[in-house]
Amino acid sequence: MTSPQTKTSILIIGGAEDKVHGREILQTFFNHAGSSDAQVAIIPSASREPAIQGDRYQKIFEEMGAKAIRIFDIRERDQSENPELHSFLEDCTGVFLTGGDQLRLYSLLADTTLMDKIRLAARQGKIALAGTSAGAAVMSHNMIAGGGSGESPNRSLVDMTTGLGIVPDIIVDQHFCNRNRMARLLSAVAYYPGCTGIGIDEDTCTLFEAEKRFRVVGKGSVTIVDTSRMSHTNAHEVGATDPLSLFNLKIHVLSHGDSYNLRSHRPIAAPRNPLSKELS
Amino acid sequence: MTSPQTKTSILIIGGAEDKVHGREILQTFFNHAGSSDAQVAIIPSASREPAIQGDRYQKIFEEMGAKAIRIFDIRERDQSENPELHSFLEDCTGVFLTGGDQLRLYSLLADTTLMDKIRLAARQGKIALAGTSAGAAVMSHNMIAGGGSGESPNRSLVDMTTGLGIVPDIIVDQHFCNRNRMARLLSAVAYYPGCTGIGIDEDTCTLFEAEKRFRVVGKGSVTIVDTSRMSHTNAHEVGATDPLSLFNLKIHVLSHGDSYNLRSHRPIAAPRNPLSKELS
Repeated sequence: MTSPQTKTSILIIGGAEDKVHGREILQTFFNHAGSSDAQVAIIPSASREPAIQGDRYQKIFEEMGAKAIRIFDIRERDQSENPELHSFLEDCTGVFLTGGDQLRLYSLLADTTLMDKIRLAARQGKIALAGTSAGAAVMSHNMIAGGGSGESPNRSLVDMTTGLGIVPDIIVDQHFCNRNRMARLLSAVAYYPGCTGIGIDEDTCTLFEAEKRFRVVGKGSVTIVDTSRMSHTNAHEVGATDPLSLFNLKIHVLSHGDSYNLRSHRPIAAPRNPLSKELS
Repeated sequence: MTSPQTKTSILIIGGAEDKVHGREILQTFFNHAGSSDAQVAIIPSASREPAIQGDRYQKIFEEMGAKAIRIFDIRERDQSENPELHSFLEDCTGVFLTGGDQLRLYSLLADTTLMDKIRLAARQGKIALAGTSAGAAVMSHNMIAGGGSGESPNRSLVDMTTGLGIVPDIIVDQHFCNRNRMARLLSAVAYYPGCTGIGIDEDTCTLFEAEKRFRVVGKGSVTIVDTSRMSHTNAHEVGATDPLSLFNLKIHVLSHGDSYNLRSHRPIAAPRNPLSKELS
């Protein structure tokens, strides 16, 4: 299932990943981090309860048989300069960003040397990097900081800010179908039409094994909003709470095993199940 | 605003239309029904409280100055044979279907002579026909009877049955952004790929003034899901609760004044506001 020779291993998880039963997504991260050779850093800084979050993931990766685990319990920016963390990072094979508040995570980690090292290592394929919920949102450069639901797409439905920019040219939203976030993702891409919107359901992730290509792993779906052929919008003419018009968006709903190429804007279907082939 | 010479006047309303202030949608229906010459039939049969619903709309159309109003309070199928209703229908200029339960509405009206007359009159442009919420759902031939939300698109998320078939080749969903119904509309079109999905927000409607073309009126948006170029789905290979894959759907988010042509699958932008032109 894992391919140790892959260049990158970045997992953007839609939140509420299974922590008890099959643990498919966490196991995928763990395998990409080297399985029994894994040396994992857990960063619970998004959370207001970092100790609880850190312990929770530590136990899981211990049970999986990690070689070493360290919780990077950064609650103030200058804690990121702790030499022990930098030392652990040298032999680290996987970094996991927990859920919480993406603004908090960003304010603690952005532009720190530690984060620069993590981003570089992830891009170079030296570590597997995973983020769930807030840890997923922060992966993009243009980040959804928050917003509402239950309304027609409109500018005031989404708060945009800057993220850590691990994967460029995308806007991530999480808990996607679960929390009625289509309208807010549409509102986001209306103002960043160069970005591909990626809505990730709970217990579902996008696994980037190459710079611009990902595969879906997990129980739910990943909704792609491709604005590259958008022919019309009123986004820059209307007031903040007026409903938006957006013509000619392409969307793809991807499920387990499907892939997507961000460069060509093309989805690729999962290899067909031989059993279902017989049935059809 | 109204064009009395138009061929058809069918309003599919996403529910919760303004009944107090501007009443834009109800006024649009009323104008299309002939304004002060309007003779309106209200059918509250979808509702479990038909008397309350009927009275409510009766007061509104009275205030607007209708020439005649009659509540078709059909609670049993054979009540639709009442000659008084058929007599009223002869000079009727507008029929309004209230909200409630679309299955109830369907079971009371489907295949009755009364409904056949209403459908024919609407198609011939002799009456304005409006339906809100349940009254909107029932307009399509393949009708969403109910379903869930908060899940990835999957077959069990939507219950499909037969509607009154006023407007063919569409599947209507209402309270759309308001109640997180994107996933269920996607689930519906996955199994009826010849149909265009139309998700209508509250206090918003699609006004058909020609057989295959509508304009958006109201406060929210109308989301079009065009499956005509869908390149892949696993819909017929997976189990009822497995997440669906749907590649290459086109979506358009339309707001007030925008139009859509169901034949060409093309959206048309609202004429531009001269003020916003100056600003841009």
